[in-house]
Amino acid sequence: MQRPSGRLANQLRTIKLTRNYTKHAEGSVLVEFGDTKVLCNATVEEGVPRFMRGEGRGWITAEYGMLPRSTGSRMGREAARGKQGGRTVEIQRLIGRSLRAAADLEALGENTIIVDCDVIQADGGTRTASITGACVAVVDALSKLGDKGLLKGTVLSEMVAAVSVGIYEGEVVLDLDYPEDSNAQADMNIVMCEGGGLIEVQGTAEENPFTNEQFMQMLAVAKEGIDELHKLQKQALDLS
Amino acid sequence: MQRPSGRLANQLRTIKLTRNYTKHAEGSVLVEFGDTKVLCNATVEEGVPRFMRGEGRGWITAEYGMLPRSTGSRMGREAARGKQGGRTVEIQRLIGRSLRAAADLEALGENTIIVDCDVIQADGGTRTASITGACVAVVDALSKLGDKGLLKGTVLSEMVAAVSVGIYEGEVVLDLDYPEDSNAQADMNIVMCEGGGLIEVQGTAEENPFTNEQFMQMLAVAKEGIDELHKLQKQALDLS
Amino acid sequence: MQRPSGRLANQLRTIKLTRNYTKHAEGSVLVEFGDTKVLCNATVEEGVPRFMRGEGRGWITAEYGMLPRSTGSRMGREAARGKQGGRTVEIQRLIGRSLRAAADLEALGENTIIVDCDVIQADGGTRTASITGACVAVVDALSKLGDKGLLKGTVLSEMVAAVSVGIYEGEVVLDLDYPEDSNAQADMNIVMCEGGGLIEVQGTAEENPFTNEQFMQMLAVAKEGIDELHKLQKQALDLS
Amino acid sequence: MQRPSGRLANQLRTIKLTRNYTKHAEGSVLVEFGDTKVLCNATVEEGVPRFMRGEGRGWITAEYGMLPRSTGSRMGREAARGKQGGRTVEIQRLIGRSLRAAADLEALGENTIIVDCDVIQADGGTRTASITGACVAVVDALSKLGDKGLLKGTVLSEMVAAVSVGIYEGEVVLDLDYPEDSNAQADMNIVMCEGGGLIEVQGTAEENPFTNEQFMQMLAVAKEGIDELHKLQKQALDLS
Amino acid sequence: MQRPSGRLANQLRTIKLTRNYTKHAEGSVLVEFGDTKVLCNATVEEGVPRFMRGEGRGWITAEYGMLPRSTGSRMGREAARGKQGGRTVEIQRLIGRSLRAAADLEALGENTIIVDCDVIQADGGTRTASITGACVAVVDALSKLGDKGLLKGTVLSEMVAAVSVGIYEGEVVLDLDYPEDSNAQADMNIVMCEGGGLIEVQGTAEENPFTNEQFMQMLAVAKEGIDELHKLQKQALDLS
Amino acid sequence: MQRPSGRLANQLRTIKLTRNYTKHAEGSVLVEFGDTKVLCNATVEEGVPRFMRGEGRGWITAEYGMLPRSTGSRMGREAARGKQGGRTVEIQRLIGRSLRAAADLEALGENTIIVDCDVIQADGGTRTASITGACVAVVDALSKLGDKGLLKGTVLSEMVAAVSVGIYEGEVVLDLDYPEDSNAQADMNIVMCEGGGLIEVQGTAEENPFTNEQFMQMLAVAKEGIDELHKLQKQALDLS
Repeated sequence: MQRPSGRLANQLRTIKLTRNYTKHAEGSVLVEFGDTKVLCNATVEEGVPRFMRGEGRGWITAEYGMLPRSTGSRMGREAARGKQGGRTVEIQRLIGRSLRAAADLEALGENTIIVDCDVIQADGGTRTASITGACVAVVDALSKLGDKGLLKGTVLSEMVAAVSVGIYEGEVVLDLDYPEDSNAQADMNIVMCEGGGLIEVQGTAEENPFTNEQFMQMLAVAKEGIDELHKLQKQALDLS
Repeated sequence: MQRPSGRLANQLRTIKLTRNYTKHAEGSVLVEFGDTKVLCNATVEEGVPRFMRGEGRGWITAEYGMLPRSTGSRMGREAARGKQGGRTVEIQRLIGRSLRAAADLEALGENTIIVDCDVIQADGGTRTASITGACVAVVDALSKLGDKGLLKGTVLSEMVAAVSVGIYEGEVVLDLDYPEDSNAQADMNIVMCEGGGLIEVQGTAEENPFTNEQFMQMLAVAKEGIDELHKLQKQALDLS
Repeated sequence: MQRPSGRLANQLRTIKLTRNYTKHAEGSVLVEFGDTKVLCNATVEEGVPRFMRGEGRGWITAEYGMLPRSTGSRMGREAARGKQGGRTVEIQRLIGRSLRAAADLEALGENTIIVDCDVIQADGGTRTASITGACVAVVDALSKLGDKGLLKGTVLSEMVAAVSVGIYEGEVVLDLDYPEDSNAQADMNIVMCEGGGLIEVQGTAEENPFTNEQFMQMLAVAKEGIDELHKLQKQALDLS
Repeated sequence: MQRPSGRLANQLRTIKLTRNYTKHAEGSVLVEFGDTKVLCNATVEEGVPRFMRGEGRGWITAEYGMLPRSTGSRMGREAARGKQGGRTVEIQRLIGRSLRAAADLEALGENTIIVDCDVIQADGGTRTASITGACVAVVDALSKLGDKGLLKGTVLSEMVAAVSVGIYEGEVVLDLDYPEDSNAQADMNIVMCEGGGLIEVQGTAEENPFTNEQFMQMLAVAKEGIDELHKLQKQALDLS
Repeated sequence: MQRPSGRLANQLRTIKLTRNYTKHAEGSVLVEFGDTKVLCNATVEEGVPRFMRGEGRGWITAEYGMLPRSTGSRMGREAARGKQGGRTVEIQRLIGRSLRAAADLEALGENTIIVDCDVIQADGGTRTASITGACVAVVDALSKLGDKGLLKGTVLSEMVAAVSVGIYEGEVVLDLDYPEDSNAQADMNIVMCEGGGLIEVQGTAEENPFTNEQFMQMLAVAKEGIDELHKLQKQALDLS
Repeated sequence: MQRPSGRLANQLRTIKLTRNYTKHAEGSVLVEFGDTKVLCNATVEEGVPRFMRGEGRGWITAEYGMLPRSTGSRMGREAARGKQGGRTVEIQRLIGRSLRAAADLEALGENTIIVDCDVIQADGGTRTASITGACVAVVDALSKLGDKGLLKGTVLSEMVAAVSVGIYEGEVVLDLDYPEDSNAQADMNIVMCEGGGLIEVQGTAEENPFTNEQFMQMLAVAKEGIDELHKLQKQALDLS
């Protein structure tokens, strides 16, 4: 098997994490997984949604969008159509859930962090890139909250990263790009903490069911990839 | 550990599949997983969505809803609020995807099957009950298509069923009801074919990440439960 | 004239009122008028809408919906289309208005009762079945409020029931089913209290105007039918 | 009993029907029932909605709206809120149904008439004024269709008019204005053809049920009022 | 060049300003620019939008709509389509901005004036007619606020009026009607105060760019027209 | 007067036009006016909207959006709110109109160009930057259409550019950044062709009207700025 990009089966694309990409957001990271480019802006707002007030805990949530021409053919603008599509909703819920599962919301105090993940250019793996970039943006935003003395402890003690893995032409491959993704027999997204803790595992058969053995192989390859992503996140944050 | 319901850790709730529950739909199944009751109505429509015309393949899709008072406190009616919530969208996409992954859409010809899964009473596990009931409703609907000579082959050669599994008070338990679900440390939904093929695996950490070992245990327990569900589906269809 | 169902001109369909049909709602009634089946769930919420606060009076309102495949051909799901249709709005306003007209809202105190009427299977007369079933569900919900000492008096001193009547093949017939309803020359829905008080009278010509005499005949036949419904409501509530 | 306006119990307000009120519409009538002023514009469009094509029959429908400051306190603009309210939907369905019941849609050929009833100033009875004015506007629009040879026969052989009647301070009064309407014990709208045929009868109890006797009195008073309206419609059309 | 209406190049249409056109609004003006007729109703509401509270300043805003058959062919009703079109939004923002720029919002105190401009009949220039009529309606509304002692000073010290000017068949013409407007090479709307102060200047090329010289000519002609409009506003208000 | 940025009154910010910024769009330009950064992606679609078919002419249109955190405080995402705001609609209509006015739509043939202008970072002047960048993106997109032989002539014979000018602390300043824009006494946007032809002139008083003299000064300063922008556009396109 030859991957369209020439990569090895367990090889990530070139990953870049550029901090302070825009000037207004408390955390602003452009994350690149090869040609996939997502701008992750973390906003800090004091206070929490009404249903959580007075509990002393914070909230982290996410919104996701694709620029209409981030893709090969233009997609209708969701703002113009008047609603977010099902895929958008699914992805933004995943990003928010992943960040919350890794965070200590009590340490956050009654503050809210909203991460906007906007896809500038898409080439497969926008949700995994979003989670990986959003984590770094949240760290920067938390750091500003910490500087103001608004935190009650360490909110994120471990990095969170995500990667896709799939079965392409019968073999397990890591970090699928669009040509692979659109021809994969199975597709899995995995979100993990540094310590190896699993946050989300989402495996989906495309045309045919996959076997338990394939599932285990995918899981193993994904873990290797995420370890690499955690290192890159820490380098970007000068924590390595 | 004692489950609130007194069930064994790997014990399903009482499962019922009542066919022909309403008179209009081509397939109509009331599925009960204990106190969770979902009405699954399969509708056959000739033709396929515009973007698929002329390809000789069919389409299977699903919609999901909860009656406002299917739950302990009343939820606002989605039709009145003017949009489906994120959770609804996520679930109906999962149901449709699961059914399609198990089906031979070419054998379906240019016909569409829409399965409406409406929750009459909720007590945890509505999405897994929906998939399990929807499969039976689709079989009945396909049978009517077959009687008219409109199929080109066997569309569903294996049953599809789904179950949840989670970590409750530190232990892996099967088929969570609401009191367990709302206190679980991790939650996983698994969709499988009779032959053991995996269609969807969705594991989610609730407050803390889960370990690889816990994940493997959940997977194993889930598979046992699904085997039992496949038997019940076939009994209901007089195929066993 | 022969009715499609073989019923006499002034004969109701078989009526069933099943209380406690679901477990969460304060009042839960499955009402059946022949093959028409509507689930009426009454929810009690403390407090009233903002514009009524501080007046010491309660509020009763209703919402109505049809499951997409409650009908012979599938109707689009209103939640998916993003709005409730005109017919839905008209019916739910009628149900709420009918219940309020029969109730003493001062006796209710500052509490709200919302009745969800969801049509499981439709065969004509869903709005009259809804009102008839909703009344029983409200009685059960009021009884729970009363047990908590939250009522200031008797809210519903008389049952409210509704029936349709129409002109089918030139003759006045009671409680039209779908085959009659779709071929009626005129159609009338009447809502009455036990004591004979009129709450709503809605007569509609379908293709041609109807005469005053026909109108009087319809009114008379409807009243007989409603007397019977009131008896069945009281039987269901063990009040007879 | 003294009516706030000083009118006799069975006396209409001053009624005016001004044809050709605007220049673009095929039929344009300003109808005034006292201070209630509604502009009824009938538009002719060739063709019918998709579901009716090829059947050789036409369609008549209506839309209704109130200018935001047609009322004593400003109502939010429905276009700005993004949806039509329940009352609006109910009224425009009533107007359309009333006109269709009186018309011979086969004689109309495959043409559509849309009547826009927009309330310029409201003082009670906007729906009955709308129907009464809309009928005249439709006659003018039909006349233009007839001049072009596009009709297959007489579409409207009788005028359609509507009036309200209610119980105010215990007495039956005709054509309620706003001060009466907001204090009525019962309220009834009746739509009739010239020949005495009934098209719609909608009686509604406000706080308490009304008796059969009251209902009969209201019906009788309404009929007298409508006879007068039919005369005024024909005068306006120079048909008397 | 001959204008379709036979007017001189710098001649306004017949302008009428009828005050107290409806009875409920605090200011109600029917403005006519030839066959263009717009009803401008000014509503006074105590208080200001939330984001302005406590600043001691008032707010003036506007909403705009066209009756569906104010135009030659029927436009879909915005309330039925569920949203206001781009042109509507643009115009109502212009009207509100124009009135605010001429007003002393501090003198208004914490009160809000909403002007509804609803087009009864359109023949070009509805936005300029709206501004011109809205100003008069606001003066009447302010006068009622003043009578109650709710103003802190003079809110509108100068009239605001607006007119269109364009290039039609190569020549600059004032106050374009629809036949001119739909064939103009350039189109400009100008909003001015009595003292000659400019509030808005919006010039738009239709098919080809216009020259600076043409722009200056349009500006000069527009100013003459607006002087005339200011006089008519003051006559209508008996201030001249 | 000292500008916050230290610029001269008639000095543009640093302008950058980066072509081929993303890889999918037929024309993709990142335009920077100082810290204002807008991504302008031009998409070519064969065919035109339905109402234009068969006329042999093309269509150019635009959509505009701001990333939620392109601004100092986070703005709600329009896709999540379910509608585009008034300002968004106004701006995207302006961009589309400006491009069309400069283009020969007959030379375009029955093709459509859609330009998406998405603001990555905002610091005043996003609409003028959008127009200036969109023009360059359209040139690139046209070039691809031309290479395929799909054009019937020269569509854009002149560059189109736009700039803002305003009165800040009593003086006319060019190309306002956010600190100036939010304190300007008047604000004007001007769109021009290379040859000096005017496409749009939109001047708006903020708090007080502006004089004719001020208006003329603003116009003069704007023209100088636009000349410079035209040069930069041609440099970016290697046409200078």
